[in-house]
Amino acid sequence: MSRMPHADAPEPRRLAAIDLGSNSFHLLVANYQHDQLQVVAKLGEKVQLAAGLDDDGVLNEAAMQRALACLAQFASFIEGIPSPHLRIVGTNALRDACNSRELIERAEALLGHEIEIIAGREEARLIYLGAAHALADVHGKRLIVDIGGGSTEFIIGERFEPLALESLHMGCVAYTRRFFADGELSEKRFRRAELAALSELANIRRPYRELGWADPVGSSGTIKAVASILAASGDGPEGLIRLEGLHALRDRVIGFKRLDKVAMEGLKEDRAKVFPAGLAILCAVFEAFDLTHMRYSDGALREGVLYDLAGRNTAEDSRLKTLNGLCRRYGIEMRQADNVAGSAAAAFDQVREAWQLGSEQRQFLIWAAKLHELGLAVSHSKFHRHGAYLLENSDLPGFSRPEQQALAFLVLAHRRKFPLAALEAQPRGARLRYGRLARLLRLAVILNHSRPEGPIQDFTLSAEGDTLDLVLSDTLAERALLLNDLRQESRYQQAAGFTLRVDQAMAET
Amino acid sequence: MSRMPHADAPEPRRLAAIDLGSNSFHLLVANYQHDQLQVVAKLGEKVQLAAGLDDDGVLNEAAMQRALACLAQFASFIEGIPSPHLRIVGTNALRDACNSRELIERAEALLGHEIEIIAGREEARLIYLGAAHALADVHGKRLIVDIGGGSTEFIIGERFEPLALESLHMGCVAYTRRFFADGELSEKRFRRAELAALSELANIRRPYRELGWADPVGSSGTIKAVASILAASGDGPEGLIRLEGLHALRDRVIGFKRLDKVAMEGLKEDRAKVFPAGLAILCAVFEAFDLTHMRYSDGALREGVLYDLAGRNTAEDSRLKTLNGLCRRYGIEMRQADNVAGSAAAAFDQVREAWQLGSEQRQFLIWAAKLHELGLAVSHSKFHRHGAYLLENSDLPGFSRPEQQALAFLVLAHRRKFPLAALEAQPRGARLRYGRLARLLRLAVILNHSRPEGPIQDFTLSAEGDTLDLVLSDTLAERALLLNDLRQESRYQQAAGFTLRVDQAMAET
Repeated sequence: MSRMPHADAPEPRRLAAIDLGSNSFHLLVANYQHDQLQVVAKLGEKVQLAAGLDDDGVLNEAAMQRALACLAQFASFIEGIPSPHLRIVGTNALRDACNSRELIERAEALLGHEIEIIAGREEARLIYLGAAHALADVHGKRLIVDIGGGSTEFIIGERFEPLALESLHMGCVAYTRRFFADGELSEKRFRRAELAALSELANIRRPYRELGWADPVGSSGTIKAVASILAASGDGPEGLIRLEGLHALRDRVIGFKRLDKVAMEGLKEDRAKVFPAGLAILCAVFEAFDLTHMRYSDGALREGVLYDLAGRNTAEDSRLKTLNGLCRRYGIEMRQADNVAGSAAAAFDQVREAWQLGSEQRQFLIWAAKLHELGLAVSHSKFHRHGAYLLENSDLPGFSRPEQQALAFLVLAHRRKFPLAALEAQPRGARLRYGRLARLLRLAVILNHSRPEGPIQDFTLSAEGDTLDLVLSDTLAERALLLNDLRQESRYQQAAGFTLRVDQAMAET
Repeated sequence: MSRMPHADAPEPRRLAAIDLGSNSFHLLVANYQHDQLQVVAKLGEKVQLAAGLDDDGVLNEAAMQRALACLAQFASFIEGIPSPHLRIVGTNALRDACNSRELIERAEALLGHEIEIIAGREEARLIYLGAAHALADVHGKRLIVDIGGGSTEFIIGERFEPLALESLHMGCVAYTRRFFADGELSEKRFRRAELAALSELANIRRPYRELGWADPVGSSGTIKAVASILAASGDGPEGLIRLEGLHALRDRVIGFKRLDKVAMEGLKEDRAKVFPAGLAILCAVFEAFDLTHMRYSDGALREGVLYDLAGRNTAEDSRLKTLNGLCRRYGIEMRQADNVAGSAAAAFDQVREAWQLGSEQRQFLIWAAKLHELGLAVSHSKFHRHGAYLLENSDLPGFSRPEQQALAFLVLAHRRKFPLAALEAQPRGARLRYGRLARLLRLAVILNHSRPEGPIQDFTLSAEGDTLDLVLSDTLAERALLLNDLRQESRYQQAAGFTLRVDQAMAET
């Protein structure tokens, strides 16, 4: 919930991204000006997080140590960069590990910044954003393939617009563990890995081929390595992977018979062990999509994160597009959504100082207000829970996991009993703020209970610690009904350990 | 899942409905011919189920005994009526009771038929269907109000089409417990009940008034009692409730000072105790909607159930409309849905005899196939779970709770590990069938994994007990991929205690 307010954005801005990938961690620091990134620092390290995942999805201590050692190196590069200008994202290995919370807490303490685990499709969206800037001169539709350590992203897009986004559950580190765990390398093993990848690819093969593309492009380490091995062996121009060259490389790699024997010019030593699995995935991609060639291109997740950061709180904020899409799909009644948002903003502005809340919180409160009736499309019964489920589980382009969880919490908390258990499940540092935002949203919903034509804003609200004092204007319509609702709300808040006082003179009516 | 196949529907058909309401149980048996119901038997009894609910939502043994005694009387009237021609529905009290499963199992054993708990909006839809037939001669939009023991339904509709359906959490039995538990009757108590009802009504007041109506109509016992008391005291024509008459009745009832003193000409003794609470709700309805009068009309839930039964498996089957609506809202890719449905039907037809499955199961399998990708609209990750969540929690007009749960189970079970725990949670008598349907759906999904242009149907499937034998045709494309998927599926099925054998000659390829 810490984003860059547009007003105070200086040019150039120093932006930073850290990508905690399943195979490698990357750092990118750049100055952003005139829609361009000027790279200041770029680092990468093969932490091989996914290799430290056991069969039960537990990340072992050795992998955590590798991760923390790498981040300790990165830390000095991001010193002094304010939170809103920095984003640290974790991908597949952290999505999969059941104890990723532990690593994240240790890493956050080390870096002094929040870390977000992003969903597969969000990863794909950011990769496309990075690739699209790198390929800005290319016209027509492109297929972008990014083979990671734990997942592989496939995007078809045109200019800056992704048309199809998918993240499949296959990657060079995960497939090394699954198909080459004992170090043996054979035609049969290799084919088994390819078949598993083809099975994943079957989900998207036809729709992607029907959508079509003019230019297949690959990013990420595996594809870079294939391109540089082929270039080193004199197979075609730098950066171009051709089908024949790929097949020859496949035979050559299987010929090594064991993972620890794999060594070729153009292949870095620290990639050699996971290279055959990555190659098998790439071969399956060529097979599934009938490719004859693929270009390697720089520009991936970390670049996308920076371009996305640069666009935040501007008209290009992808989160606004996502919110509008939700409102349309679930047929939210916008008049009521806007009215509740209007009252919530009025309430917020009156207690903002006393509760030390910032503009990012105001933004989130308004978004939650717009979405609070989302679950009505599912069912009136328990609709706050359905809305929270959808916000928690949907792919919401532009939103990080913690942001989705915050919105889900506010929607869940907007009516009925105050959900203390759900509040406890929020990150420790955010609980006080989220609890307060939820109380403001609840008041805004009650004030607009009778679904008026415009937002109810003629009230006075003041806060002191956990006590809220509400004074209703004399001119308010339907006061008796409102006071009845507010009496009930006072009881709900009391049960949660808060105090809501409603102007006594009115309560007597 | 037991519905009437249209082909063997004789005319006239004997149809029966039992409505397990929160205040009263009703039985209605009728012959259906030429779109008309000829009533054969009609019984009602004030079981006051909701009065037996304690504060924790536990239904006490005395209430269960009253319910079972009533159903024992009903039982003889439905003897010999086949399951597809009979529907037994439970409403609010059974929705709310945490131990309703116990009563339902005992009642099902007594009646020899399945009992369905229906959702509030489904109840509203059925009430409208019943009322619309009773009011077929009336033109323009109507507001239908049905004050029950635990919930009150509000429907605006025109001809046979409901335009707005809501079920609010208020009823004469529930409000008697909440506002008049100690038997005292006063202006203050009465007003408090009215305010609570007004607070519920605030949710729908404006949208309903904006939609508008020409003719307000009330059904159910409370409204019938008000009309007959007013008629007995000479206030206006039979069956018409006017605002002034209602206000005079309100004063008269409060004047009794205690619930057990309430007695008036036109009010049956067994309704007297819950009448003041019902009257408070009706007064709030007049207040919220600014009504000057309301007509009483017969024709409610039980009639709606019969008309709905009569329309099943015809073009008027409301379930088809609901399914199409889901496909549209969640943007299901229909080609793939139809392909999986085609393969599922082909698989079903080959094992139907061996597994003793009927046409209702075939229908359900096909519906589940059409909906299996529903959750993709939420997120690709775990989309089978999101689909199951939506099917379990959505208001799906025409579907009963057990039907929704069956669809949700099949969608949940269509990929990944076979969800044995979810199968165990299904009604005992249905588990074997549901497990088998899920296995057929899984096969159909695998066969169409590569999203072909038409359904894959060139395979042979045979069943013996829990063993399935699948032989793939030589002509199948992408056999290697398919065999790889089927190997994985054999392992999944084995882990669940089933056997799936795939033609050996093929497996060698």
